[in-house]
This record gives sequence, C-alpha cells and structure tokens, in this order.
Amino acid sequence: MKILFLGDIVGRSGRDAVCQNMKRWRQELQLDLVVANGENAAHGFGLTRAIATELFQSGVDVVTLGNHAWDQSEMVSAIGAFPHLIRPLNYPPGTPGHGAVVVEVKPGCKALVLNLMGRIFMDPLDDPFRAVAELLSKHRLGTTVQAIVVDIHAEATSEKMGLATLLDGHVSLVVGTHTHVPTADWRILPGGTAYQTDAGMCGAYDSIIGMDKTIALERFTNKVKRTRHQPAPGPATVCGLYVEVDDRTGRATQVAPFRQGGFLSQAWPASNV
Amino acid sequence: MKILFLGDIVGRSGRDAVCQNMKRWRQELQLDLVVANGENAAHGFGLTRAIATELFQSGVDVVTLGNHAWDQSEMVSAIGAFPHLIRPLNYPPGTPGHGAVVVEVKPGCKALVLNLMGRIFMDPLDDPFRAVAELLSKHRLGTTVQAIVVDIHAEATSEKMGLATLLDGHVSLVVGTHTHVPTADWRILPGGTAYQTDAGMCGAYDSIIGMDKTIALERFTNKVKRTRHQPAPGPATVCGLYVEVDDRTGRATQVAPFRQGGFLSQAWPASNV
Amino acid sequence: MKILFLGDIVGRSGRDAVCQNMKRWRQELQLDLVVANGENAAHGFGLTRAIATELFQSGVDVVTLGNHAWDQSEMVSAIGAFPHLIRPLNYPPGTPGHGAVVVEVKPGCKALVLNLMGRIFMDPLDDPFRAVAELLSKHRLGTTVQAIVVDIHAEATSEKMGLATLLDGHVSLVVGTHTHVPTADWRILPGGTAYQTDAGMCGAYDSIIGMDKTIALERFTNKVKRTRHQPAPGPATVCGLYVEVDDRTGRATQVAPFRQGGFLSQAWPASNV
Amino acid sequence: MKILFLGDIVGRSGRDAVCQNMKRWRQELQLDLVVANGENAAHGFGLTRAIATELFQSGVDVVTLGNHAWDQSEMVSAIGAFPHLIRPLNYPPGTPGHGAVVVEVKPGCKALVLNLMGRIFMDPLDDPFRAVAELLSKHRLGTTVQAIVVDIHAEATSEKMGLATLLDGHVSLVVGTHTHVPTADWRILPGGTAYQTDAGMCGAYDSIIGMDKTIALERFTNKVKRTRHQPAPGPATVCGLYVEVDDRTGRATQVAPFRQGGFLSQAWPASNV
Ligand SMILES: [Fe+2]
Ligand SMILES: [Fe+2]
Ligand SMILES: [Fe+2]
Ligand SMILES: [Fe+2]
Ligand SMILES: [Fe+2]
Ligand SMILES: [Fe+2]
Ligand SMILES: [Fe+2]
Ligand SMILES: [Fe+2]
Repeated sequence: MKILFLGDIVGRSGRDAVCQNMKRWRQELQLDLVVANGENAAHGFGLTRAIATELFQSGVDVVTLGNHAWDQSEMVSAIGAFPHLIRPLNYPPGTPGHGAVVVEVKPGCKALVLNLMGRIFMDPLDDPFRAVAELLSKHRLGTTVQAIVVDIHAEATSEKMGLATLLDGHVSLVVGTHTHVPTADWRILPGGTAYQTDAGMCGAYDSIIGMDKTIALERFTNKVKRTRHQPAPGPATVCGLYVEVDDRTGRATQVAPFRQGGFLSQAWPASNV
Repeated sequence: MKILFLGDIVGRSGRDAVCQNMKRWRQELQLDLVVANGENAAHGFGLTRAIATELFQSGVDVVTLGNHAWDQSEMVSAIGAFPHLIRPLNYPPGTPGHGAVVVEVKPGCKALVLNLMGRIFMDPLDDPFRAVAELLSKHRLGTTVQAIVVDIHAEATSEKMGLATLLDGHVSLVVGTHTHVPTADWRILPGGTAYQTDAGMCGAYDSIIGMDKTIALERFTNKVKRTRHQPAPGPATVCGLYVEVDDRTGRATQVAPFRQGGFLSQAWPASNV
Repeated sequence: MKILFLGDIVGRSGRDAVCQNMKRWRQELQLDLVVANGENAAHGFGLTRAIATELFQSGVDVVTLGNHAWDQSEMVSAIGAFPHLIRPLNYPPGTPGHGAVVVEVKPGCKALVLNLMGRIFMDPLDDPFRAVAELLSKHRLGTTVQAIVVDIHAEATSEKMGLATLLDGHVSLVVGTHTHVPTADWRILPGGTAYQTDAGMCGAYDSIIGMDKTIALERFTNKVKRTRHQPAPGPATVCGLYVEVDDRTGRATQVAPFRQGGFLSQAWPASNV
Repeated sequence: MKILFLGDIVGRSGRDAVCQNMKRWRQELQLDLVVANGENAAHGFGLTRAIATELFQSGVDVVTLGNHAWDQSEMVSAIGAFPHLIRPLNYPPGTPGHGAVVVEVKPGCKALVLNLMGRIFMDPLDDPFRAVAELLSKHRLGTTVQAIVVDIHAEATSEKMGLATLLDGHVSLVVGTHTHVPTADWRILPGGTAYQTDAGMCGAYDSIIGMDKTIALERFTNKVKRTRHQPAPGPATVCGLYVEVDDRTGRATQVAPFRQGGFLSQAWPASNV
C-alpha cells in the first residue's frame, strides 16, 4: 500500500497547492491512501463544511484535525456529515465525531487512520497513550486491517517520540503534526513502523508558521496584540511523508519525505518497487 | 566563510560522534567555523569543565548552551574560564558568562556568534527580540564582523521563525536548537539569512529525544516517575547545518543539511564553490 | 493615609456594587486613596473608555489593569486619556500608557501607585522584579512620596510572595490581583509593608471566577467550547484590603480585609486611630 | 459531624504545629474527622513513612497528597501500608495507593474522603471532573456515607470553582490545596456544599509559600538557581477549614476558617450547635 500523509493545510495558499495537484500526485505515485491534516484549512483556524468537501473532492481520503478542530463553530455539527473526517481520539467521551476511521483502500485492503493529540504544552485532555492502546486492542495489523496510520498532533518532540516508541511494531506509520515545520528524521523504527516527528505544514513558508510574518512579528514584540493573525500570502510548500507498507504484515518498507512547491528544498519519493 | 553548526550534543554517544570526526570534517569541508550546542553534553544534563575542554580540543570553535546551562553546578564558575563558551544572551544581568562572542575565523575575518533563548513554553526570561536587537546595534554585518551566527534555543517553532523574521538580512544564520529533532526547512530567507528551525541533536536517535526510550516511555504513562532519565545507548547521528557566507556582505550563499552516522538519512553538504 | 484597594472588578455586577457604594465607603472610612483593578470591568474582558470614566466618577482614584488590559481594542488609544489609569509596568517599552502614577492624595501628601504583572503561568513579559527595583530607585518612601501601593497581577502565589519579599520595607502595600479569590493572609511583613496575596474580585461569587457557572463548567468538561464566557448574574461581593499608612514613614500600621455584599462572609475594617 | 480540614503541611515547622496541638483541638472542637494534606511534610517535598506515622498518631484521620506525592521515593511502596493515606484519584490506573477512602467516623457514621488533582498549569493527568463523577456514582450522600470531603489539589481558582460547581449538593465539602495560601471565600454553596478555594498551608508564613525567602527570592531573580529550596524556619500558622455536616443529609450547616499560630490573623470556629 502506498500512502501519502500531508501535514496541516494552512489557508487558501495551502488548500490550493494541495487541491490543484492531488489528482496528479495520486497518479504519478500510484497512491492508495492520502491523509491530510485540515485543522488550519479555513483561513488558518479550523475547517468548514465547504472546505472539507473541497479537500475530499480533490482526492484526499481522510482528513485529520487537532487543537483547532472547533475554531469554526459549524464544525461541531458538520463533523458528523463526513465519515472520513476525524478529530483527536483522546477528546472526552461525548465529543462530536470520531477519532479513528477504517477505510477500504482497495479491494480486500483496509487501513485504520487515527488522530491523537498530545498534552505537553497543550490543553488538558485524556491520555493519548492509553487511548491509542485501547483502540489498538481491537485491531490487528496485517489481519483486521492492512495498515494503520497515526497522526499525533502535538507540540513536544518527546511526546511524539514517546508515542512512536509505544506503537513501534503495532502500526504502519506514526507521524506528527502541529508545529508546521517538517522534520528531517524520517525513518523506519526497529519494529517496522515508519516515523517522522512532524510532517510540516502545507502552507506559505515565507511566514511565521503560515501566518503573515509582519503581523506575527509585531505580536511577539508588542504585547498589545491589536492585529489578528492572517494566513501569509505566497506560494505554499506541500509537506508530508510518503510510505510504502507491506500489505501482508502492515510494516513499512519505505519512507521518504515529500516537499513540493514554494521555498523549501524539494523532495519527491522514489519508490522501492 | 564555511560554517558548520551542530545541534544539542547529548551524552557520551553524541560527544564521541562529534569529537572523533571533527578534525576530518573540518578538513573535508574546509570549515572556517564550527559552532555546537553543548547543553546536554554531560550525561544529558548540562556541561562540565572537562567536557567543554574535550569539545574545544576536538575542533569545535564556539559552544553554545540553553535551558540546561547550569544543570552541572560547576558550570556557574567554570563558564568564565572558556572565552568561546556562551550562554543565552537574554539571561538577566549578572548571570555568569556572556551571551555572545566574536571569534577571529581567519586573518581579517571575524564572526559574531550569539545564543538566545525563547520564552514560549519555557521559563520566564528577558525578551530575546529586544536582546538581540540591542546587541546587533553594536555590530554591522560585512563591516565589524564578516558573519553573524544566531543559535535560538527555543521550543516553539513560531518564536524561532519570529526571530528569523526580525533578523533576516542582519545576520548570516539563524538556527534553532532544543527540540532535539532536525527540521527539513533549511533555506535562505529573502534578506539573505540562512535559516533552519532546529539543527537537531547530536545523539542516539533510537531513543526519546536522546534519552533511554524504555525509561522515558514509562515516565509518560506512569506518573510516579521513579526512574531517572538516562542518555540512550547506541550510535549517534550528528545533526546540523552547513552554511557558506559571502565574506564581503555576510549574507548566506549556500545552506545544506548535515546528518552523519546513526539511524537518520545521511546528508553531506555539496559546496557551491 | 487611609487606603482602600479593590481587586478585579468583573462586569456589570462588580461595577454596580463598587460605583453605587464608593462615595459612602470613602466617607465612612475617611479614605484618602482608593485603587481598584479594572481589567475585567467590561463584560469580563478589559475596560472601555466609558467604564473607566464611570469608575473614576464614582470615586476611584487610580485604576490598575492586568493581562486583560487590551481585550477591548479601544483601550490601546484610550489609556492615554486617563492619567490615573495604569497598566502593568513590565510591558515592553513602547506599550501605550504608564505602569505607575503619582497622585496627590491630600495637600503635601503623595502616593505612588504601580502595577506589575507576573510571568509564571502567564504570557512572557519583562522581569517584574527588575522593573519595580528600577522604578523604586527614583522614589523614596517617606520622602518623595508618602505611600507606595503595588498591585501585582499574577497567578502564582510564589511569585507574589517573592515580590513582597523584595519590596518589604520599601513600599506601603503589596497586594495581588488576577485569581479572583480573596486570600486570608493579610498581614504586615517584618519590614513594615502590608501584604495580601490576592485582593479577590469585585464580582458575583456564585460563579466560576465571576463567569457564568453553567457555561464555565461546560467548557471544563466539553472541550468543544462552543459557548463563550459571560459574567455571572447575581449580587457582587466587593473584595479588597484596607490599609493605614504612617505618613512620615510610609509604613503600614494597620491592614484589614474588606468584603461587602454578596455571598462571602462580610468584613469591614476597624480603624486603629 | 464536625470536620477539620488542614492544608499542605510544610516541613518540620508545619508538622510540629499540627502534631503538638491536634489532640487538644480535637477535644476542644469535638472533632469527628480530621483530614490534612501531607504532600510537603517531608522537608517541603513529599512524605515519608515515618512522617505519615507521626501525623496519624497525632490524631489526623486521613492524609491526602498532591503533585509532590512521590517526591520521596519510598512513598511509592509505602503508600500501600497506610489505609488512610490517599493520593489524587485521577492518577492513571496502576498508580500505587488509592484516591479515596471511607472511614468510620463514629458508630454508624461514615465519611468518604477523596483527593483530586487539577490539570490547569499542572502536569497532564486524567480528567478530575470525570474521575469524581464516576466515583460518586457509587456513593450517595446521606445513605451509604454521612459525609463526603473532597480535597482538590490545583493551581487555578477557576478549576477549583468548576469542580465545586459540579459537586455542589453531592458532597459535604470541596476544599482546595496546593497554593499554600488560605482564601477568604469560605461559604456554603447553593446546593449545601461547603467550599473554600484553598485551605492554605500549615507552615511558616514568613517565607515564600513555606520555603526560605532568601533562597526563593534569589531563584526568582537569578536564573542560575544554584541553591536548593529549603523550608523556612519560624513558627507555623496552621490553616484550614472547620465544617459541620448534618449527618442525615450530608449537607454542610456551618463553615468557618481555622488559622492558629504564626503570623496570620487568628481564626477559631464558633460552633453552630
Ligand atoms: Fe495544532
Ligand atoms: Fe496546525
Ligand atoms: Fe534545551
Ligand atoms: Fe537540548
Ligand atoms: Fe488577570
Ligand atoms: Fe482578572
Ligand atoms: Fe502541590
Ligand atoms: Fe503543597
């Protein structure tokens, strides 16, 4: 199974870069599953019904969220309308939506995608380590599903690596989101799980984490904070991770960075096959 | 001027990988200046007199620090003995040591190296934006010094990018440390400053940010925290950034990732010259 | 000099209780100086021009602020129009307004009132310990001013007690604000400074720190946070501290709690004189 | 039922003041139940087997803990030896000890005491709102137990008031600990639950939250932090809350502050009976 995971899509710049190229990328890389984090797709803050529809129509199979999940209040009710849109699993019981979804990738081949949120330097939430352990007790890699993809939306690198340590060998991919910067530590962990601490955003990198750099800099130095954040203009770099998974074992056989467009150095995965 | 910047050296694994190869790397890359962050060199926590000496003898020109600067209490008095060992500039007045140093890189060619610390998700400290602006009012890139290198030791990607926005065009390199994961966003900003959000650690990556993964994972799931962190065994990946600076303007002309050894994908800079 | 200090005034309930009684309290207690924290006066978030005017007209001499200072954007420009309205001193240089004010309390008798903000569990800001030390180098209790009142707007009890330790003997009163709960530790410190960790809010205590308790509780248990905070209805308890200061030395001779109205146990100061 | 709750006992000063007077206080106030927080009893950090024994022998019925529960490593195994020593309920499953205990106060009269920990500005932990709701689904005030006492060990006043809002009418007393400063907001909430945001510490108040004030102040201003915290010398004020509960309904009928010794204003409860 060939998987592309894309990090936080930020505003119009990020959306356009993803949506205008997705069909081509799916084809060229013969992708079986595309997962993207959509928590900043709506002008930098949250996701709307219309934008979720746009992302799915462009060819994204599963959209994940994070701490900005509910910034657009319509999402509280809208999330139920999108079976492939998930929010962090470790929200408390009763939270709208689901934290995981099983998708049929190709005939006889299913993938479980799940979204977790970290707690270090973030709002109090349920324990992501216990939440994922409980969910995985109901799934078995290579048996009930052929791949498991985990988006861990978190600030601290330690917490992301901690979850990867817990999950190594039990899932196909653990990839972080939220910091809006791609990390250069893609690798396959000893147990066979592909890992990268952060996928990086799909957004304009001539910015401060995707936001207009003049406004954001002023807010750092001037505590009056009179101006609201706005997504930066300019071309986006679409950042993510490409993973090949052995459909029999669910283990990763290949992992490679994906960086297309904009100002970052370009990376295009070379297939193992 | 050819510069190699290395991120947080963690424990013996990181030290050995740096010290055993530095002479060779200096020669092969014809390096003029090597800067390394040493805040975790002493068993993961702080730096000692002996280890600082070892790093300088191996060929590191300037050692920077961070939030672990004073973990080894001897450093409070020892820092004064090492003219090329600096701690964050935005510690309060009266803090031992200095936050910046000018080194003569080659005849007629000087570099200013300075260390800042972020405040988001970190201990209260003086404003790094004002601290660096004040220091830079006394130096002029391409006139008083031929290069300026800024190590911004911080957690939040936004704060690092904020400082890079402030400094773009005024310094040669802004590079982050502290998260222990290299980022894949090396680039030259519009004003001519080389930038990477985090250099990544020089340490064992089969770990949780350089620490033993079994102990660290247990501390995440078991709040009793009965076991102390220990540096992970295993081979280190030395992570950093290679930059070429135009000696007349002080602007970066080339930036490239440096990752050698261990489990991360390898990167070796190709010179522009 | 007889001083009444009132903590954070929250919304209409708090404003009404303060404004409708202030003239009477001034008379009954023969007050020379009334200082009140106004950071939550405007519907719980910030202060407006109209509400500042209302507070001063009711008989408040000096209004202090805190982390909500700029919640109402008009305050950025309005603060300059109110000479007796101050914001935390340790905002960065260039912040509108001032962090301290000298008021003539009665002929030949002046008081310096200053506002500081803590940093622990709060936004990064300049060092309040250095800021106050620098300001006090220009004033001398019992010489240039007859009293000095310090409002330390902070979360952590340790930081408030730390500032009180620094200031003991150099000011007349150190009193905390921000937690919206009055503390029962009023006392005169060894050096002669009156102290209470928090003045408590002037607001409806059948609430969650002055906010509607149903909404606030739902936000604690339901992370979707779909409902905005609103000030709680119901009668306010006006909370604060009464202090008598020796006009020759500037030291406190009497300190007593002040709690009037609403649901808390009532406290009315008995004068020493 | 007559209950005395005492806040965080800090070091020798706090222990001595509690232990030397407890027998007398029990008699004079005809106390049925004494609960005290012991998280700082061992030199300011945690609790030991010997000190727990000393507290119980002096007449304390139940000892609660908090974020310092495991500072003394022997407590991890020792907690099991003390049936009336509890730690926060919302530690993860598998944590040694229990978060609640039922004690027989007098013939036919039982009290449930439970300990919760907040999450705002504290380490990630399980949701205290859900944890207490689940526990209380197994107990019924006035039926299975005649009183329920909740120690909510937390930093933020909002979180403590939030829990009190949830529990009002379902428990006899909600009282906070952890800030080491007594609050002046004792009252009976509309549903019949006695409440005070923080009980205050039993320790030396000529200090910074019970710690030596010279050392603590130096650590605020000097980030090198070369000196370790030490409990302050000097006489303690024993701080807490006195509550009378109707044994038939479990509701509070009387609540009054308790402050004895040291430098704070003294408060001794007057019985309603
Ligand atoms: Fe996020
Ligand atoms: Fe994001
Ligand atoms: Fe660090
Ligand atoms: Fe580090
Ligand atoms: Fe505040
Ligand atoms: Fe407030
Ligand atoms: Fe505590
Ligand atoms: Fe405590």
